[in-house]
Amino acid sequence: MTAKKWVYFFGDGKTDGQSGNKVLVGGKGANLAEMVELGIPVPAGFTITTEACTEFYQNNQAWPEGLEAQILENLARVEAAMGGKFGDATNPLLLSVRSGARVSMPGMMDTVLNLGLNDDTVQGLIAKSNNPRFAFDSYRRFIQMYGDVVMGVDHAKFEAALSALKEAKGVTDDTELTAEDLQELVSQYKEIVKSDAGKLFPEDPLEQLRGAINAVFLSWNTPRAIRYRQMNDIPHDWGTAVNVQAMVFGNMGENSGTGVAFTRNPSTGENVFYGEYLMNAQGEDVVAGIRTPLPIRTLEEAKPEIYRELVDIYKKLEQHYKDMQDIEFTIQENKLYLLQTRVGKRTAQAAVRIAVEMVEEGLIDKKTAVMRVEPEQLDQLLHKQIDPNAEVNVIAKGLPASPGAAIGRIVFSAEDAEAWKERGEQVILVRNETSPEDIGGMDAAEGILTARGGMTSHAAVVARGMGKCCVAGCGDARINEAKREVNINGTILKEGDWITLNGTTGEVILGKVDLIDPELTGNFGTLMEWADEFRALGIRTNADTPNDARVAREFGAEGIGLCRTEHMFFEGDRIKAVRQMILSKDQEGREKALALLLPYQKDDFIGIFKEMKGLPVTIRLLDPPLHEFLPTEPEAIKELAEEMGVSFEELSQTVESLKELNPMLGHRGCRLGVTYPEIYAMQARAIFEAAAELTKAGQKVVPEIMIPLVGVVKELELMKDVCVEVAEAVQKEYGVELEYSIGTMLELPRAAVTADKIAKVAEFFSFGTNDLTQMTFGYSRDDAATFLPAYTDKGILEKDPFQTLDQEGVGSLVEIGVQKGLEANPNLKLGVCGEHGGDPASIDFFHRVGLTYVSCSPFRVPIARLAAAQANIRNPR
Amino acid sequence: MTAKKWVYFFGDGKTDGQSGNKVLVGGKGANLAEMVELGIPVPAGFTITTEACTEFYQNNQAWPEGLEAQILENLARVEAAMGGKFGDATNPLLLSVRSGARVSMPGMMDTVLNLGLNDDTVQGLIAKSNNPRFAFDSYRRFIQMYGDVVMGVDHAKFEAALSALKEAKGVTDDTELTAEDLQELVSQYKEIVKSDAGKLFPEDPLEQLRGAINAVFLSWNTPRAIRYRQMNDIPHDWGTAVNVQAMVFGNMGENSGTGVAFTRNPSTGENVFYGEYLMNAQGEDVVAGIRTPLPIRTLEEAKPEIYRELVDIYKKLEQHYKDMQDIEFTIQENKLYLLQTRVGKRTAQAAVRIAVEMVEEGLIDKKTAVMRVEPEQLDQLLHKQIDPNAEVNVIAKGLPASPGAAIGRIVFSAEDAEAWKERGEQVILVRNETSPEDIGGMDAAEGILTARGGMTSHAAVVARGMGKCCVAGCGDARINEAKREVNINGTILKEGDWITLNGTTGEVILGKVDLIDPELTGNFGTLMEWADEFRALGIRTNADTPNDARVAREFGAEGIGLCRTEHMFFEGDRIKAVRQMILSKDQEGREKALALLLPYQKDDFIGIFKEMKGLPVTIRLLDPPLHEFLPTEPEAIKELAEEMGVSFEELSQTVESLKELNPMLGHRGCRLGVTYPEIYAMQARAIFEAAAELTKAGQKVVPEIMIPLVGVVKELELMKDVCVEVAEAVQKEYGVELEYSIGTMLELPRAAVTADKIAKVAEFFSFGTNDLTQMTFGYSRDDAATFLPAYTDKGILEKDPFQTLDQEGVGSLVEIGVQKGLEANPNLKLGVCGEHGGDPASIDFFHRVGLTYVSCSPFRVPIARLAAAQANIRNPR
Repeated sequence: MTAKKWVYFFGDGKTDGQSGNKVLVGGKGANLAEMVELGIPVPAGFTITTEACTEFYQNNQAWPEGLEAQILENLARVEAAMGGKFGDATNPLLLSVRSGARVSMPGMMDTVLNLGLNDDTVQGLIAKSNNPRFAFDSYRRFIQMYGDVVMGVDHAKFEAALSALKEAKGVTDDTELTAEDLQELVSQYKEIVKSDAGKLFPEDPLEQLRGAINAVFLSWNTPRAIRYRQMNDIPHDWGTAVNVQAMVFGNMGENSGTGVAFTRNPSTGENVFYGEYLMNAQGEDVVAGIRTPLPIRTLEEAKPEIYRELVDIYKKLEQHYKDMQDIEFTIQENKLYLLQTRVGKRTAQAAVRIAVEMVEEGLIDKKTAVMRVEPEQLDQLLHKQIDPNAEVNVIAKGLPASPGAAIGRIVFSAEDAEAWKERGEQVILVRNETSPEDIGGMDAAEGILTARGGMTSHAAVVARGMGKCCVAGCGDARINEAKREVNINGTILKEGDWITLNGTTGEVILGKVDLIDPELTGNFGTLMEWADEFRALGIRTNADTPNDARVAREFGAEGIGLCRTEHMFFEGDRIKAVRQMILSKDQEGREKALALLLPYQKDDFIGIFKEMKGLPVTIRLLDPPLHEFLPTEPEAIKELAEEMGVSFEELSQTVESLKELNPMLGHRGCRLGVTYPEIYAMQARAIFEAAAELTKAGQKVVPEIMIPLVGVVKELELMKDVCVEVAEAVQKEYGVELEYSIGTMLELPRAAVTADKIAKVAEFFSFGTNDLTQMTFGYSRDDAATFLPAYTDKGILEKDPFQTLDQEGVGSLVEIGVQKGLEANPNLKLGVCGEHGGDPASIDFFHRVGLTYVSCSPFRVPIARLAAAQANIRNPR
Repeated sequence: MTAKKWVYFFGDGKTDGQSGNKVLVGGKGANLAEMVELGIPVPAGFTITTEACTEFYQNNQAWPEGLEAQILENLARVEAAMGGKFGDATNPLLLSVRSGARVSMPGMMDTVLNLGLNDDTVQGLIAKSNNPRFAFDSYRRFIQMYGDVVMGVDHAKFEAALSALKEAKGVTDDTELTAEDLQELVSQYKEIVKSDAGKLFPEDPLEQLRGAINAVFLSWNTPRAIRYRQMNDIPHDWGTAVNVQAMVFGNMGENSGTGVAFTRNPSTGENVFYGEYLMNAQGEDVVAGIRTPLPIRTLEEAKPEIYRELVDIYKKLEQHYKDMQDIEFTIQENKLYLLQTRVGKRTAQAAVRIAVEMVEEGLIDKKTAVMRVEPEQLDQLLHKQIDPNAEVNVIAKGLPASPGAAIGRIVFSAEDAEAWKERGEQVILVRNETSPEDIGGMDAAEGILTARGGMTSHAAVVARGMGKCCVAGCGDARINEAKREVNINGTILKEGDWITLNGTTGEVILGKVDLIDPELTGNFGTLMEWADEFRALGIRTNADTPNDARVAREFGAEGIGLCRTEHMFFEGDRIKAVRQMILSKDQEGREKALALLLPYQKDDFIGIFKEMKGLPVTIRLLDPPLHEFLPTEPEAIKELAEEMGVSFEELSQTVESLKELNPMLGHRGCRLGVTYPEIYAMQARAIFEAAAELTKAGQKVVPEIMIPLVGVVKELELMKDVCVEVAEAVQKEYGVELEYSIGTMLELPRAAVTADKIAKVAEFFSFGTNDLTQMTFGYSRDDAATFLPAYTDKGILEKDPFQTLDQEGVGSLVEIGVQKGLEANPNLKLGVCGEHGGDPASIDFFHRVGLTYVSCSPFRVPIARLAAAQANIRNPR
């Protein structure tokens, strides 16, 4: 009976047919064979199967029968292919021994390089490389790696010997050690092995090989590998394959070299071969920057045959993998070897261009192209960016709260921002935190920098909505408002000083830096069109102003999913009427003040309806607690008291009485509408009058009134009654019929679990996943910054749940809401309008649970379009 | 073919066999027949079936064939039974016509009384009653009722005529009108009918009867009746029966009379006939209080035969209904008629005594007795009460936050409360609101009065836990702390003034009032024992001190379900160490401060474990945000800064930096444990050292460590690791084995929907329904007072969800948590420790969803025991 086949060869254009068989030879083994079968020259080697590993464990950690013989046999094939000899003192073949499971377990298992070196073979390496320093450095590294991985020597001891040597030699850098120093280190390392492992470092290359293979087998069951498999649901009985491969060297003289290249330009996407190389060098030399690598094109002149071979290879690889490849190659004595090929990383611009051009070239289809671009990447294309070639002086880093870049002169108040802008200045608004009162100033500023608050703080949310650059929560900025200066990590900046913000990275940069404009090229538009062909989700936008609405429509929004009305209350003279309303002691007083607000609100809606040209507009009635509209500082209260003709004491008391311990859980949302129905009635009237006027003028208008924070169906019933009554009155007054619907924001856990009841009254649900996340976790967006970083650090949460929907927890409430809602009302329209509506991973979830649309800030509309397309390609509806 | 039987007679000891057939003759009709069959004299009458009503609707609102004939036939039987004649001018029989559906629809349908009166028969009534005023008053009321109900006349017109007449006569009260005035009013009413209905008021009694019967049929389908049926899931096709019954009068001279009685004393429960009567009077006279009714016993002398008959009847009724009855009777010319019998309302004391004695009498079984007492009523028996005979001067009303009564002298600070108590004073602590710092003062006070805060405010929760009387949220109390006085609705009370609080009603009473002690009589104990025989739920208590623990165990608690540890941090010198811990800049500093706290905490647990004598004790690790332990007033900060040796500015800044916008959703619960594991480690050590010491001393101790506010399973994993590590260390140090378990408080919606994950790590869940209610509704307990009253007023919420569990919303999350938890871990122990654990309706729910136990404040333990028994009797496990 012949033994089972445990070992598979690859190299020299030949394999044993294992290409693609990841189960048998692991991912790396299968890929190496695949390259060989494509006719790509790779350093020869062989793969020991995963079956050998499992057999090893079943067999009391002994090799199965036939394994040793097959290894020797294949080692001979490798020697033949590479023209060297394992253990030979003049022409030594060196090997790498690497793990390779069915799926990648990065960094979990062991690797040994330069295997085969000993006191004899190192002389061969010196001769071939003509570089004794390199040879001894490789040798001492091999002993260290082998000692650690195979023999269990504490690697700190090696480090200590190296440090001691450097100290003795009076040098600080490894590279300053000479060949002689390193030869001395080799001796010391062997002593360390001897004393720590209790046995000599093996000089016999075959013994080295056996030890390394065993070490890789054993590394399958280290505690961290086991834990990794548990976390990633990888079965423990899969075992790992072992890849034994010839080492090649690019530093064997002027006919050797090494390089990295991309099959297309990874910055621009241009279809040109792009990369760099160095002759007589190792990969490390390229990285270390001691010598400047040459552009790949110059290889054509230096080594025309090799260059032609490389060009053939890269074309073949792109054709085969149908994607831009990032390749590593080494030339060893005029022979080209590909060490690795993988999908190349690229900029957003390149990703779009490559995807679109590959479709034009017939290499991929549109669906594939749409899948090729990371939606999140698109953000880079939609905003001004800092010129990548500019010199920047980063003085602090905050949270990248709203992408893009902005330059401006520092101001410390919203009023100043507006005033400076008025006189033609570019400003950056710098605040501890912003509040709804600052909206005007934020709008006037080029960018916003706050010292406090997270990714979903007021500043961040509003800035993203405006598509305006914002760096939030920059704890290193200590603001002294009185002195009108800010101390950023010791740099004192005064009002009027120039700074630049990078909202994409969170960097705060001293002075003015060149910016580049967004490039919404033809390729971008093409890709967006293709995305629209594939998606099932509708894409709407969160927009509170005609300007937001216009931008979003230009970006492809199909309606407004969330028009907040509270921001409208702060503008100009309105805030006065709003405050009058709040401070009224009775309904009559409130109604009087509300009557003043009505024409403003109506104009707001006319502006937005006009911009949306007949697309649906979901308007959320007043949501925030009333105290947000009142001043809190004594000075401001005093001023307001005079304005309102009440005493300072009385007004202070009112302000105090409206304060809440937990405003997020307080008197807000439809609770305001229930206690003061006249507020919602005014808003409904403004909406319907605006709609009626435009309808009479021949424009289509589709208002959808959204009642916020409904937890009990009866709340919605009452508020719906208020709105319907107004709608009927307005239709009669204007003599028109209006198309409108009334629904609710689904943002409380109670609403989700009673969605069947609510859906009988609502015509639509819009999941408010910001608040739903707050309530489901019991996290305040404003306060969670004190513990959320620790939570992601400790792996309690993978991601900030305010940025990416927590599918397990919050998502399961969304699912319950969808399911119960549709059960009770199959015509229910289902949307989402939280921040998550613009997050690709969340969009994928919303697609899967069957929502009708997502709504996001205008600048995320393209991202959402692409993410929605990808979601539908992954899980077609 | 003979017509169907549409009409069923009752009276004179005879029926047509309809007793108990509610489907056919409705609830009232069936009960009237039941009384007749028992041999009880009731005014004779007949019932028109529900089938006649449905036939009426199917038949285009015409009477079915045979109905008219059967009515006339039965009318004759009534005349025979009552000895009067319908429409007769000398001996008129008057009728009542009432609706009566299968189930009671109180006030939804129409009734006509005194039917049969006209200008002739009124003379007969005058002759029989010898009371022309009464006769004309009856007549004018009949016209008004009939005009309104049958003829659709706007009843405001009748009111207007009555008012005009009173004005003309210069009187203010109806009773001041003479017989002549009322006779005049009869004429005017007829004119109103004529002009408003367009036809004459019918003088023909049979026409009157037909009209009234039709009106009752039609009242089945009034909009409000339809709406009521929709709300109560009553089918629309049931129809209503119509009860036509002879009127009897107790004001027909000295041989007539009327009375009400209870078959046992409703105050004490004593088994004696109890009630009062008036001769020559109508029910109204008894109620109006113009004449003083006589005790029922005196009837024995006045009318011995009738009294004997009445005694026979009441005994028969009690035997039949097996419960204390509340009866109404009328004597008309020496003939006794029972008008009504129903289950009598009773005090808590009476309820317990009657239930227990009826078992002893063999009338009911134990199970029935247990069902007879409202659990909530027991509260009256467990606290001091205001003497019901005392004169009280109520000056304001707040929320009945914690039951019982208390007398004391007013103090305005916790320190004063403690100091005054020290010197032997009884005090009432009066505060705007209380905070954890006030615990000592609350403990020292007899009762607590707060101006702000709801039923679940700090003051209310803590007071209930202490079994201490508390009136909370008394908005009429305006406190001036500086002047040490409080203005309660204009009454200025100064420090040291006496007040009395009634925590059962929320009343604030001026001065000292007599109190009566709780009566935990033998009957109470007996009933509790029976309850324990029937219940399936375990009953634990929420107790933070040895004293609480002792009280609760005396009340029958079977363990501690929630021992909060934060209150312990405020006592004596500890708060200093706590503050040191909070203000430490690093882990080392915190650990140093925690080491100071350890011995205190250990003593706390030793005290509690000792009191619980081996019963399980669930200890919740630190939960509130740290800023609760820091002072907020500048003065106090200054003092603390000096004590701590830091600058005022630094400390102010720290206090400021710990402030949260929404502390309820902030850095608290296990989030503290995750960021500062050393805090939980210290608490775990205190628990395990206490347990180890007692175990060594031979006492059984069963600590259950509860990690609060877990939302993500990994939080629990980390905190469990911290505790287990300490447990293992302590067991080794003390050389003992401890029996302990580690679980979590399930109080976040996310925890409920991911309960399967959490249950794999937790050994028990304790539903924290207070926080779960907050998060599920998005209501802050502290702030909801601004809108919750409007919510219950408008019927949005039936009850305050912090008092009674919202089964539909919060409850469905509890169910999800239970179901997912048990799926993943069938050995999971399930409890509840929110305020709802002491609420009977909520306990019924917790029983049904399958919890293991409920935990409530000590004084609610008996209530919970009874409620749990009733829950299991209703839905046996």
